[in-house]
Amino acid sequence: MTGAERRPRAVVLLSGGLDSATTLAMAVDEGFECHTLALDYGQRHRAELEAAASLSAALGAAGHRTVQVDLRRIGGSALTDDIPVPVSSSDSESTSDPTSDGIPVTYVPARNTVLLAIATGLAETLAADALFIGVNAVDYSGYPDCRPQFIAAFEDLARLATKRGVEGHELAVRTPLIHLSKAEIIRSGDALGVDYSGTVSCYQADATGRACGHCDSCRIRRDGFEAAGVPDPTRYVDRCID
Amino acid sequence: MTGAERRPRAVVLLSGGLDSATTLAMAVDEGFECHTLALDYGQRHRAELEAAASLSAALGAAGHRTVQVDLRRIGGSALTDDIPVPVSSSDSESTSDPTSDGIPVTYVPARNTVLLAIATGLAETLAADALFIGVNAVDYSGYPDCRPQFIAAFEDLARLATKRGVEGHELAVRTPLIHLSKAEIIRSGDALGVDYSGTVSCYQADATGRACGHCDSCRIRRDGFEAAGVPDPTRYVDRCID
Repeated sequence: MTGAERRPRAVVLLSGGLDSATTLAMAVDEGFECHTLALDYGQRHRAELEAAASLSAALGAAGHRTVQVDLRRIGGSALTDDIPVPVSSSDSESTSDPTSDGIPVTYVPARNTVLLAIATGLAETLAADALFIGVNAVDYSGYPDCRPQFIAAFEDLARLATKRGVEGHELAVRTPLIHLSKAEIIRSGDALGVDYSGTVSCYQADATGRACGHCDSCRIRRDGFEAAGVPDPTRYVDRCID
Repeated sequence: MTGAERRPRAVVLLSGGLDSATTLAMAVDEGFECHTLALDYGQRHRAELEAAASLSAALGAAGHRTVQVDLRRIGGSALTDDIPVPVSSSDSESTSDPTSDGIPVTYVPARNTVLLAIATGLAETLAADALFIGVNAVDYSGYPDCRPQFIAAFEDLARLATKRGVEGHELAVRTPLIHLSKAEIIRSGDALGVDYSGTVSCYQADATGRACGHCDSCRIRRDGFEAAGVPDPTRYVDRCID
């Protein structure tokens, strides 16, 4: 960081969901000049991308970019292929893990590696000091590329991958949510003034961003608001959720 | 690898240039079932992408994919921005390094990190055993993400980033050109029957893949054929090169 010369600068990965919106609010609160980056990887829930652009402005980022990368060409995930998104079979389940091997079928192969790689390129162009990504404990129960050891390995890689890294500049990969539950994330964001009605978590949100209320992501989110004791502002397609 | 059950499988990054074509020929020669991957990152020399598809078939790959990722949105490189490509000021120069800090202005921020990240996703989907990338000594004099230590760090990352890695499968990141000069690469590929007339190296090739004969990439290639003692089959726009 350059101290008194300028504010520290960060690239913040912003999907339009609850976690990344909270991460952005935390980075702004820490004093970073934040440049947000959304990845359009052919996901079904395009309302997320529109939410990301709106959240970036609402939360005070200095700029926002959407980068297209067509991960449908490499296949392997329910979020981008034409196989059904999993629906909770029981409300008594408490994890997001519908597969036998502990990895959700909604896993996009190497998604966070691709996200962080593109963010590293932008960080190089902007001479940023940090990358922020909203991975957390709820995710890394199932997704290999949300675990702390993955993040640490990426930080090592970024140092070797870039011109700035070679010149001795640090690029910290910051994960302020990594040890937080969904309820703790919501309480933190609520305290920072995040308006969660503008975030989209649903795997199959409609064109206006309204949530289905039934998929794993909706269930985790709903349970999170309840556990946090924060009113759930989510706009549901069907108000009569089970 | 599964030994007698099936041939080992590889994802081979194929740009359409001389280096990656040679790398593919080496992977095929080693007995890998090769799936080639080209990245369309908004580069000027689109003839490369067409060359990649043709080379993939000619060299015996099992399949070819082109994935779009718009790196122009993150800026910072002469290959994707509107700043001029460097032209050799002297034929007596022997490196590809036109900048004061040792990193060419043709560097695309984090390009190889993005390439390898997407290739890792495809390797996950295909249950591949190896990734091949044609980085080499000519490149890593200037590009941070062509160095052996970068490749080693990426291999560590891929192990942590993927479902297959978590399950204990290895994904080797293979760089068969890494210690070879351009002349040695050309001699190796020539021995394996690579038809270099179908490869495009020029930074500003025309729509049919004809080379300018003057940019750094053309100069390195031309010198390589001369040093290898292999006739240069490159199709130049202007046959009267200096």
